[in-house]
Amino acid sequence: MTSGHGPQAGETAEDARIVRTRADVARTAFDVLVEEGSEALTHARVAERAGYSKTTLYKHWPARSDLAATALEALRDFKHYEPTGDTRSDLIGELTTFRQAVLDLRLDLVLSAMAQWATLDTMRHVRNEINSEGQRPIRGILEHVFEGPELEAAISMLSGVVACPSLMFGTVPDDDVIEAAVDIVLNRARPSR
Amino acid sequence: MTSGHGPQAGETAEDARIVRTRADVARTAFDVLVEEGSEALTHARVAERAGYSKTTLYKHWPARSDLAATALEALRDFKHYEPTGDTRSDLIGELTTFRQAVLDLRLDLVLSAMAQWATLDTMRHVRNEINSEGQRPIRGILEHVFEGPELEAAISMLSGVVACPSLMFGTVPDDDVIEAAVDIVLNRARPSR
Repeated sequence: MTSGHGPQAGETAEDARIVRTRADVARTAFDVLVEEGSEALTHARVAERAGYSKTTLYKHWPARSDLAATALEALRDFKHYEPTGDTRSDLIGELTTFRQAVLDLRLDLVLSAMAQWATLDTMRHVRNEINSEGQRPIRGILEHVFEGPELEAAISMLSGVVACPSLMFGTVPDDDVIEAAVDIVLNRARPSR
Repeated sequence: MTSGHGPQAGETAEDARIVRTRADVARTAFDVLVEEGSEALTHARVAERAGYSKTTLYKHWPARSDLAATALEALRDFKHYEPTGDTRSDLIGELTTFRQAVLDLRLDLVLSAMAQWATLDTMRHVRNEINSEGQRPIRGILEHVFEGPELEAAISMLSGVVACPSLMFGTVPDDDVIEAAVDIVLNRARPSR
């Protein structure tokens, strides 16, 4: 819906101002979400923190779900691990990056907020898209060694080794727990890998 | 905080009425949580749905976190799978029961609501206790075959095979995915089991 790109050829000062407003509001909405919780993500609160009028916010983001979708755009900049081609290292690298995003971006709070919002059709679509995108690297690596139910199980299991402790207990796994999870999964992988 | 037991010897009509009020409100608070979302869990909304005055609610549950804690008491009645002693069957049985609770009790929404509330100290304690209790059967089974980092990894991974699809995509795993997850984990278990 909004875009993070800067001013381009042919853009007027008005266009540039709108681009800046959208970027400011997207960033502030994300900060409100992770620092104050999903219930604080209202037009009034984001307007106050971003320094814009509520009228401006309602004009660009009429519904609260629009604000939520804008907040989640910050996740699109999330940098995944750069794969090396070694299955074990790549899985450990991707899970370690996921763990860092829980610590830095509070991805656990984002995940749980998205699950809460998913009772709305519009938010369910956004949630599914963002989570598919988030799991894409792990799926890509595991597709080389699993298929069918084992592939689906392995994707959920490796996501769970980071997601479950953070969502259920507010903690993240140590390195040796991440490595143990990857070894448990790869021990079962077909020999052809 | 509240108790679900019925009137006992020595209880007055007043005591019995309080017990009934508490049970009604706990049940209604849980229904509001899973049917309307965590943001709807307010004194006004629960009073309206349960047919009590807001004054009564504020008297027994002064803070919103008290209402949330009361709503979560419904989970204490959750029936885990009755273990048979066979590790594979017991893990599949427990995960199938967990999956059913996602469908029947919307445990996915409860989990995500608890994660959102955990920014409050009081709710963090309640959340950790409920989630520890929820994972206890799986931990008990896996303690016979794993220890250390592998044990922690296996617990999060098997929780994740149900929790991740439900929280991330609003779906639950098929039987063959649950079985594949258990087989992936047990394939790595030490031979002494």
